[in-house]
Amino acid sequence: MLKKLYHGAAFYPELWDGEVVRRDIRLMAETGVNVVRIGEFLWSTIEPAEGQIDVTPLADVIGRLHAAGIDTILCTPTATPPIWYSHGHPERLFVNAEGMALGHGSRQHACTNHPVFREKAAIIIERLARELGRLPGVIGWQLDNEFKAHVSECMCAECRRLWHAWLEKRYGTVDRLNELWGTRVWSESYNAFDQVPQPGPTPFLHNASLQTMYRLFSMEKIAEFADEKAAIIRRYSDAPITHNSSVAFHLDNERLFRHLDFASLDTYASSAHYAAYLLNCDLFRNFKPGRPFWIMETSPSHAGSIASSGVPHPNGYLAAEAVAAYALGAEGFCYWLWRQQRAGSEQPHGAVVSAWGQPGIGYRNVLQAERARQAIEPHIIATRPAQAQVAITYSDKAKAFLATESHGKLRHRGLVSGAYERVLRTGMHRDLVPEGTSLEGYKLLWTPFVPHLSSDLIERSLAFVENGGIWIVGPLTSIRTEEHTVPTDAGLGGLEPFAGAETVFTYAMDGTGTLGEAFGMKAPLSLWSTVFEVSEAISMGNLSGGPSPGLSFLTEVKRGKGKLVLLGSMPAGDDGNEMLERMLIHYGNEANVTRRADTTKGTIVAPRVSETEELWVIVNMNGEGGSVTLPHEGTDKISGAIVSAGKLEVGPYEYRVIAFPAAASLQ
Amino acid sequence: MLKKLYHGAAFYPELWDGEVVRRDIRLMAETGVNVVRIGEFLWSTIEPAEGQIDVTPLADVIGRLHAAGIDTILCTPTATPPIWYSHGHPERLFVNAEGMALGHGSRQHACTNHPVFREKAAIIIERLARELGRLPGVIGWQLDNEFKAHVSECMCAECRRLWHAWLEKRYGTVDRLNELWGTRVWSESYNAFDQVPQPGPTPFLHNASLQTMYRLFSMEKIAEFADEKAAIIRRYSDAPITHNSSVAFHLDNERLFRHLDFASLDTYASSAHYAAYLLNCDLFRNFKPGRPFWIMETSPSHAGSIASSGVPHPNGYLAAEAVAAYALGAEGFCYWLWRQQRAGSEQPHGAVVSAWGQPGIGYRNVLQAERARQAIEPHIIATRPAQAQVAITYSDKAKAFLATESHGKLRHRGLVSGAYERVLRTGMHRDLVPEGTSLEGYKLLWTPFVPHLSSDLIERSLAFVENGGIWIVGPLTSIRTEEHTVPTDAGLGGLEPFAGAETVFTYAMDGTGTLGEAFGMKAPLSLWSTVFEVSEAISMGNLSGGPSPGLSFLTEVKRGKGKLVLLGSMPAGDDGNEMLERMLIHYGNEANVTRRADTTKGTIVAPRVSETEELWVIVNMNGEGGSVTLPHEGTDKISGAIVSAGKLEVGPYEYRVIAFPAAASLQ
Amino acid sequence: MLKKLYHGAAFYPELWDGEVVRRDIRLMAETGVNVVRIGEFLWSTIEPAEGQIDVTPLADVIGRLHAAGIDTILCTPTATPPIWYSHGHPERLFVNAEGMALGHGSRQHACTNHPVFREKAAIIIERLARELGRLPGVIGWQLDNEFKAHVSECMCAECRRLWHAWLEKRYGTVDRLNELWGTRVWSESYNAFDQVPQPGPTPFLHNASLQTMYRLFSMEKIAEFADEKAAIIRRYSDAPITHNSSVAFHLDNERLFRHLDFASLDTYASSAHYAAYLLNCDLFRNFKPGRPFWIMETSPSHAGSIASSGVPHPNGYLAAEAVAAYALGAEGFCYWLWRQQRAGSEQPHGAVVSAWGQPGIGYRNVLQAERARQAIEPHIIATRPAQAQVAITYSDKAKAFLATESHGKLRHRGLVSGAYERVLRTGMHRDLVPEGTSLEGYKLLWTPFVPHLSSDLIERSLAFVENGGIWIVGPLTSIRTEEHTVPTDAGLGGLEPFAGAETVFTYAMDGTGTLGEAFGMKAPLSLWSTVFEVSEAISMGNLSGGPSPGLSFLTEVKRGKGKLVLLGSMPAGDDGNEMLERMLIHYGNEANVTRRADTTKGTIVAPRVSETEELWVIVNMNGEGGSVTLPHEGTDKISGAIVSAGKLEVGPYEYRVIAFPAAASLQ
Repeated sequence: MLKKLYHGAAFYPELWDGEVVRRDIRLMAETGVNVVRIGEFLWSTIEPAEGQIDVTPLADVIGRLHAAGIDTILCTPTATPPIWYSHGHPERLFVNAEGMALGHGSRQHACTNHPVFREKAAIIIERLARELGRLPGVIGWQLDNEFKAHVSECMCAECRRLWHAWLEKRYGTVDRLNELWGTRVWSESYNAFDQVPQPGPTPFLHNASLQTMYRLFSMEKIAEFADEKAAIIRRYSDAPITHNSSVAFHLDNERLFRHLDFASLDTYASSAHYAAYLLNCDLFRNFKPGRPFWIMETSPSHAGSIASSGVPHPNGYLAAEAVAAYALGAEGFCYWLWRQQRAGSEQPHGAVVSAWGQPGIGYRNVLQAERARQAIEPHIIATRPAQAQVAITYSDKAKAFLATESHGKLRHRGLVSGAYERVLRTGMHRDLVPEGTSLEGYKLLWTPFVPHLSSDLIERSLAFVENGGIWIVGPLTSIRTEEHTVPTDAGLGGLEPFAGAETVFTYAMDGTGTLGEAFGMKAPLSLWSTVFEVSEAISMGNLSGGPSPGLSFLTEVKRGKGKLVLLGSMPAGDDGNEMLERMLIHYGNEANVTRRADTTKGTIVAPRVSETEELWVIVNMNGEGGSVTLPHEGTDKISGAIVSAGKLEVGPYEYRVIAFPAAASLQ
Repeated sequence: MLKKLYHGAAFYPELWDGEVVRRDIRLMAETGVNVVRIGEFLWSTIEPAEGQIDVTPLADVIGRLHAAGIDTILCTPTATPPIWYSHGHPERLFVNAEGMALGHGSRQHACTNHPVFREKAAIIIERLARELGRLPGVIGWQLDNEFKAHVSECMCAECRRLWHAWLEKRYGTVDRLNELWGTRVWSESYNAFDQVPQPGPTPFLHNASLQTMYRLFSMEKIAEFADEKAAIIRRYSDAPITHNSSVAFHLDNERLFRHLDFASLDTYASSAHYAAYLLNCDLFRNFKPGRPFWIMETSPSHAGSIASSGVPHPNGYLAAEAVAAYALGAEGFCYWLWRQQRAGSEQPHGAVVSAWGQPGIGYRNVLQAERARQAIEPHIIATRPAQAQVAITYSDKAKAFLATESHGKLRHRGLVSGAYERVLRTGMHRDLVPEGTSLEGYKLLWTPFVPHLSSDLIERSLAFVENGGIWIVGPLTSIRTEEHTVPTDAGLGGLEPFAGAETVFTYAMDGTGTLGEAFGMKAPLSLWSTVFEVSEAISMGNLSGGPSPGLSFLTEVKRGKGKLVLLGSMPAGDDGNEMLERMLIHYGNEANVTRRADTTKGTIVAPRVSETEELWVIVNMNGEGGSVTLPHEGTDKISGAIVSAGKLEVGPYEYRVIAFPAAASLQ
Repeated sequence: MLKKLYHGAAFYPELWDGEVVRRDIRLMAETGVNVVRIGEFLWSTIEPAEGQIDVTPLADVIGRLHAAGIDTILCTPTATPPIWYSHGHPERLFVNAEGMALGHGSRQHACTNHPVFREKAAIIIERLARELGRLPGVIGWQLDNEFKAHVSECMCAECRRLWHAWLEKRYGTVDRLNELWGTRVWSESYNAFDQVPQPGPTPFLHNASLQTMYRLFSMEKIAEFADEKAAIIRRYSDAPITHNSSVAFHLDNERLFRHLDFASLDTYASSAHYAAYLLNCDLFRNFKPGRPFWIMETSPSHAGSIASSGVPHPNGYLAAEAVAAYALGAEGFCYWLWRQQRAGSEQPHGAVVSAWGQPGIGYRNVLQAERARQAIEPHIIATRPAQAQVAITYSDKAKAFLATESHGKLRHRGLVSGAYERVLRTGMHRDLVPEGTSLEGYKLLWTPFVPHLSSDLIERSLAFVENGGIWIVGPLTSIRTEEHTVPTDAGLGGLEPFAGAETVFTYAMDGTGTLGEAFGMKAPLSLWSTVFEVSEAISMGNLSGGPSPGLSFLTEVKRGKGKLVLLGSMPAGDDGNEMLERMLIHYGNEANVTRRADTTKGTIVAPRVSETEELWVIVNMNGEGGSVTLPHEGTDKISGAIVSAGKLEVGPYEYRVIAFPAAASLQ
């Protein structure tokens, strides 16, 4: 399916004169750039006054790029509506949680739910699609830019109206809303949907259900906006559609990508946070299973703006990133941006070339990444990412629940990253899977930090267990209902009947001196926790110290051919990390997880397969070099040399592509 | 006067179905709960639409509780007006210092000074009082809930109008206001009362007098609201009325309780801050002298909300709290809350039973507290708290002054807690006394952190001195006039003529390297300080280093049979604490303070007396165990055993009740 | 030109009754106060109702002061308009960046650009000037008080209108604005000037050009206000006009003082920051070259307010400050304030006498300063500050650029202070010079932290180089165009053609591990940096480590008789400071800088000259004492003793006045 590997950059021909654009296209071709992304902020260029639309300059640039062998991802420019849209129309602006309307001059200042915005966006998108959608070289579309990166939930009057309609659709009657949200708690009770406030300023806390539902409403609305706009494009263009997203934005990525054609992401993790980079690859691969994803934006050197300053990548890191991405399922690896901004607020941001047209600090690394791309391309397109046997549930809905119920300190991203890093360290190949992902092919499933488990997810996961899988649930999972309330039947609600254990207590372990004992070691426990008394299950981890010593924080019970494991608390610190890794290896072994590589820290294996062979793309990501143990003799696909089984050394940021015959034992 | 000890919990029958309520009442009775508090947030349940009032469900619950042997404290529900009150009425909302109206969905969003609010509150309170006020089992009333816990001064238009009226009443003419506030300083001068702003946003600082007066205005208004509502209840009910208050709220507690019948408080101090818990007991006992107070809310285990997370008490601490409270003058000890909230924003808060009806993490501690209550009850009701000989002045007006004049760092609560802990450590039994408290019975009075001393307080305290008392004044006391200005007659204003010393300089000691030398030791001095030159007085503590070495920070002068002591500066750090404790013991000895127990740190003695005996209730509060030196042979009232004079060991969180014959020597 | 040295205090006769005023004048005269500043906040006293103006009380006070031998600096009271100005007129108020109008009750709440404000200010100023401007004793005027100390850019509707007019004047057409600001970046493009927003709240960052231009607009407008008001005064008074300014305020001081008559400043640096104090002297001397400046406000002991608390000066420091100021070019040294405020928000601020009329904690130091003033006066008035050979460029426009482009951490004041301290440590006498200052007389010029170099400054500085000067440029200098964009011709724009080096890369060095090697040592490099490849120039400092090792951060090239030196990066930490000092000494020697004293740290030499002799005023500023090496035998002007060449010891805060014959070698 994959035909080539794309190496690209964001390009803003509208910002530079024709001669600069011509030189840039020439230099791009020399550099090895084979795709550019254009158009995501140029609305005012093609519609300088309301209704005066002319997209022909874009057609011209696309044609010239195509002539130079460079394809185009075309963006809809709706992140930055022109001044004619907002001037004199405060009612069209995004309103933040303090009730402040945010104005023109930056990005995302328009409320994307306002009907006039929807209409104006539709008009400009239709023109772009109709006139440019079938041009040679246009290989894809990107909707807007980084939805909800700078803003979260809008509090404008139009959103209030839509919120009330959304509530009515969800609950039918306001009495049902009152009952499900428990609004009698503080006499919040509503007599009509139009009385339900947006979660604006109050003296103390808003109802948890209201807060979480407003987040879900907002997530649904932005996805609906994407759906609407994608539908317009499809009327005129066959090129696949994506959005450049991120786990950092206020989005439900699973929902967003449901009706889009491929997944893509922006990432500016520094080299010190290479695990965050890998997490993105292991997650975005799974939003559109079987379909390559794109790194749509990453810096060739450093992020930066007039209000921030990033650290340039160490030399060599960029190529390691590129190889890791391609090996883990990316089709494209693109920079933001080609030419340094000469104006605006991102002047200091790293670029491939400077504002005066000379190679930037990252340029040599871009060339190195291009050489790597060329070297691995035949091997990547001849294979596909191997099926992981380990899955970690990823849920942006869970992120919404934890944003509401943070206990003052819980950050979804940090929690999920911590869990991911534990799996990464075991060397087991892994997927981060959205809630709705099929569990076919997996052997071990971990579902941490998902306060509400949908009945569908419980049902499918239990079926996975019945069929031999091991499902580890927790911490902080299944402790809340769909409406963000506490279950009143049992601590873990609908899951508990299957657990062979009873939730006895729930409380935060921090500061209580409680230790967990499991897998031959002790570690402090942390976070809001669920404490169990086992019945049918057995305890795999007991509490010592604290207010409930002797009870269990880790239980397992056989169900069918598999096991259901409850992890009620979060082991903390270095010992906690070690304990979690032991737990993962223990259950990985029990589940017969075979796709696992023995590497030193900072070196990864991205396994790929074809009908005939299995490929290990080995990359050192931490710049310290390391080694990997090859299970068999293999072939270095780039040098052609035979490589013996056993320890293979890799230098700082070095990559290797080693092939083995397709081996059933690794599947 | 005390007939029984109450052990209770907040109960929300309106949130659960009838079957759950029935089961809860049964379980309460088994657990030993003999009182519940109901109704404080249920306005929307009994008046779902404006004017449609039905309080009969409450009558039914009260009846069923009574049948089960459980009494009721009935609350007025005014902290959470229903949606019909605020929807479409932004003018009725609380407005914060930034001018932002705070909306429905949480608590305290109504401006309690709005005439419509006063009217609607009167209607619902009258109905509750009329229909329920004489029901069997109703033993008390609580007005509203935690006044001014989440909000401080309201800035709404109605409050502006009332502010102007309050100013006119206080000052008569605007010229007088101008003169007393010194408004010429920055051309603030007003030509009419209605020009005087509320202390909203300004480029720099508001006039100190304006700020402090607005705080006092606000404190007066909320007390007036309480008075009004209490008057309504009294027309229909004889049950005594309280409010669940705290030193943390924006209130003048002395004023608030003036027209209420008994004092009560909410406290969520963690076990590490047991001294804060004891401070509450030693203070709230004195808002209504001779009348027991209530701990109206405390957690059976931990506080918590969706935005915060508390640490559960160590096992054993809860019973220690209960015993300490009863011994120090409490009649009731009540939990928030009986059953964990299933919805809203306080889902993680500790409760006696979980949302699914099982014993919570604190349940065993509740049972232990109940056993303790039963064990001590006969001994507590046979005695009364012993008269303390040491008093510390407590003033919420002073809190208002220091909120205005914080010097960027002064926190009234922390300062007062520090002073209290010094007295606690000496083992002297003590009262924290509101400004207006009679000084009858005391021997040593310490008045720290009261920037303005009223002439009444000066007069009564000097009379106390004349009669043999020792009065320690400062730090930060008597440095400002009633109008929050600097005295222009002398540094300490009206007090200085009696001091036998002259205020030479005032400045902040921090960072100057100044040491204080007193009681055979040196300690660094801190905070805004008053430096003295003695005349008639003698210096008990001299400065070394800094810009004014050789002068005095601690003076004493004989007046009548007693002494007036000025403490001009705050000794800091461990040495400073030691110096303050030496000072207190020194003057305690001079004043012949005999009611003092020799205990290890973390173990306290609460002395109680009857006509025939003196009781020492000894409690270990820090969980480390300790000992107390018994001055005489005594009787263990619980075991009946004789206990020798000398050292008595107590285990972690252990309590003992030791009786001695009534001994004049301890009075 | 200098006839006497003034020693003064701010005086508020309007706040005290006549008897207090009379006593204060008497005590001032005794204390040695020979000038007071009056009137800057008394608008409401002289115009209590709109149009009812009576300034005669001021005339009376001025007369009485004059009779006591005390001169007067008369202030215009526009920082605090009376209540009649703002009450009922929210449209006249200052509006902050969040869109919040700031109200009456403090200072600077009026928008100084509002036409009604301009009119009312003109009326009161004219009356003051007309009636008091020629009174005996009136020796100067101060406009307003601390412009833009508490507020920065106003966002009111009137300012919006003026902003649009200012833009139109600056750019002519909106197309030109769009082009120069690069507004196509995020579709910001404007179709008319009246669409250009003020930099209010947006979801992400505003365009850099818009932000910087709004700052420059605001700086221009407040200077225009000063110009207008000075013009009125000049119609009636010959006394020179100043404003009490500071580098901490949101002002362009060079522009502000352009049409004023002398420079003055307020400073409250603590003794620990004596270098900040000296920086002020070395800068403000140069706003009106050849004309003495004034320290218009400094505390006799400590700063303070109800919201802050300062540390009193160590005894002795005040006289050191006074001597340093006079020696470095001050004519006046004045305290804020004479008598402690009895009311308002600055009650705790240090004053010469207390609110109750007694000497304050600083009083003895004031007397010591007065003795010093008398001792040095004849020697100061017989000489003038020596011409410095070293200049550091100071630019408040650069401050505006860095406020816009802070990279999240850059603070202009801290950066400039750091640079200044490096020069101070070398012992070279120095000027901080505004951008437009003539370079006549200098040998070494350092221009750090000026993102945009005007073509005029480049031209004049290159001419300075041609004539033999050495010009060190950077760090962070010449990296932006006049419109706050990135140059597109070369990294350093118009300067680069003269540099003999090419800007290869720009990036932030922090966190990259890059070291700079120069002058025989290594130091870590920091901040946004410019990396060079030399052509004609030679590299004086190379990079090691990081992403661009081997390139240059420090280049020099001969131009005419001098050298152009580029410093592309900021050496950091102790090693960085040492490296910078070595660089300065190296180029100081090359440039033949002879005016340099060899002192221990914390001891300074302020050189002064006359036709016949050269004076070294030596002051120990750090309270630790120290020494200075005298190049020749000299005369102690105070004792008359002969002092040998070589090491001269000075005690803590001691000062000496040593005269040498006028020595060409030092010129």
